[in-house]
Amino acid sequence: MEDKDISRAVIKRLPRYYRYLGELIEDGVERISSNELSNRMKVTASQIRQDLNNFGGFGQQGYGYNVKYLHSEIAKILGLDRTHPMIIVGAGNLGQALANYTQFEKQGFKLVGIFDVNPVLKGVSVRGLEIQMVDELPEFIKKYQVEIATLTLPKSKALEMVKVLTDNGVKAIWNFAHTDLNLSVPSDVVVENVHLSESLMRLSYNLNRREKEE
Amino acid sequence: MEDKDISRAVIKRLPRYYRYLGELIEDGVERISSNELSNRMKVTASQIRQDLNNFGGFGQQGYGYNVKYLHSEIAKILGLDRTHPMIIVGAGNLGQALANYTQFEKQGFKLVGIFDVNPVLKGVSVRGLEIQMVDELPEFIKKYQVEIATLTLPKSKALEMVKVLTDNGVKAIWNFAHTDLNLSVPSDVVVENVHLSESLMRLSYNLNRREKEE
Repeated sequence: MEDKDISRAVIKRLPRYYRYLGELIEDGVERISSNELSNRMKVTASQIRQDLNNFGGFGQQGYGYNVKYLHSEIAKILGLDRTHPMIIVGAGNLGQALANYTQFEKQGFKLVGIFDVNPVLKGVSVRGLEIQMVDELPEFIKKYQVEIATLTLPKSKALEMVKVLTDNGVKAIWNFAHTDLNLSVPSDVVVENVHLSESLMRLSYNLNRREKEE
Repeated sequence: MEDKDISRAVIKRLPRYYRYLGELIEDGVERISSNELSNRMKVTASQIRQDLNNFGGFGQQGYGYNVKYLHSEIAKILGLDRTHPMIIVGAGNLGQALANYTQFEKQGFKLVGIFDVNPVLKGVSVRGLEIQMVDELPEFIKKYQVEIATLTLPKSKALEMVKVLTDNGVKAIWNFAHTDLNLSVPSDVVVENVHLSESLMRLSYNLNRREKEE
């Protein structure tokens, strides 16, 4: 599949399509037109057709989309059709909260280990996994062929940890530390930064603007 | 200040400027050129000038930007120059993790209450606040003039809770429930959806694509 030039905007929307199609499956809907999907998702039908055409279409004139088929095709594009061994590095509140999200596992993100730097946490059990110390990371990553590391450590520790992770073969970092890690990883490692405080600031900006308008 | 037509993309970038300027202040940097800021942030200098011109510029030819001044001006634009009383509704792992982020408070987001539907959690203390039951919400919101509600409840409970919150005066919802709440709130309420699993899927997509390229 030729998808090298798919824009970031389309990729940003794909998981949302996947979520809505999953809801349709739960509701027992077998097929849907781009117009109906458009009404549900509050994006234009032409946007939907255009987005899905990037991946070869999937729709049939006069029939619309087969919901299960489209859902499974988007799953393949997103890499959800196979299992990704994942670890969490940083077993504080946020790390433990993410460990307890069982939904990720249903999508193929299999949590195989939780790590921290704090000896007090050693051996504490989170969802059946005992928290391990970070000096066990190199061996563990190789043994379990860890692909994804979720980084829920303070910024000060994130950078050195990234080196340990990527040196030992981790290929993807889901970063919650308050810094842009994509500027400091090897070029073959992918990073997704989640900056929660920036999200809260955008909310505050919109609240502020709304109040000025009133 | 006339900022009604500021694009979503600029607003998305503003918190990032704010973060980098905060780091510069910590590093003792007093002024910076758009070129230096560009090198740090890995965006073009012309992008920076263009973004900041939306708000009246702030830069001086031959001097660059005064870091503290620009930081405080962006704070005002983002509404961080005043206190926003905030509650968390949903005191599970994620709700408790967010309650323990003291950084939000430094930016003016003052956590005044934590609520849940589960009686087992009643009275449990999180960062000095006792978890309350949601039937206390209407009175509490009015008494504390709550502006922002962080919603860390399952999707099934999120919708009815949104009605209680907005009926009683909450003006902004920071939504972690797995649904797009902006489609179902009154028009004067602002919503910021944080879909963690969509973020993880984007990482997976990029990982998948990278592997195909190799």
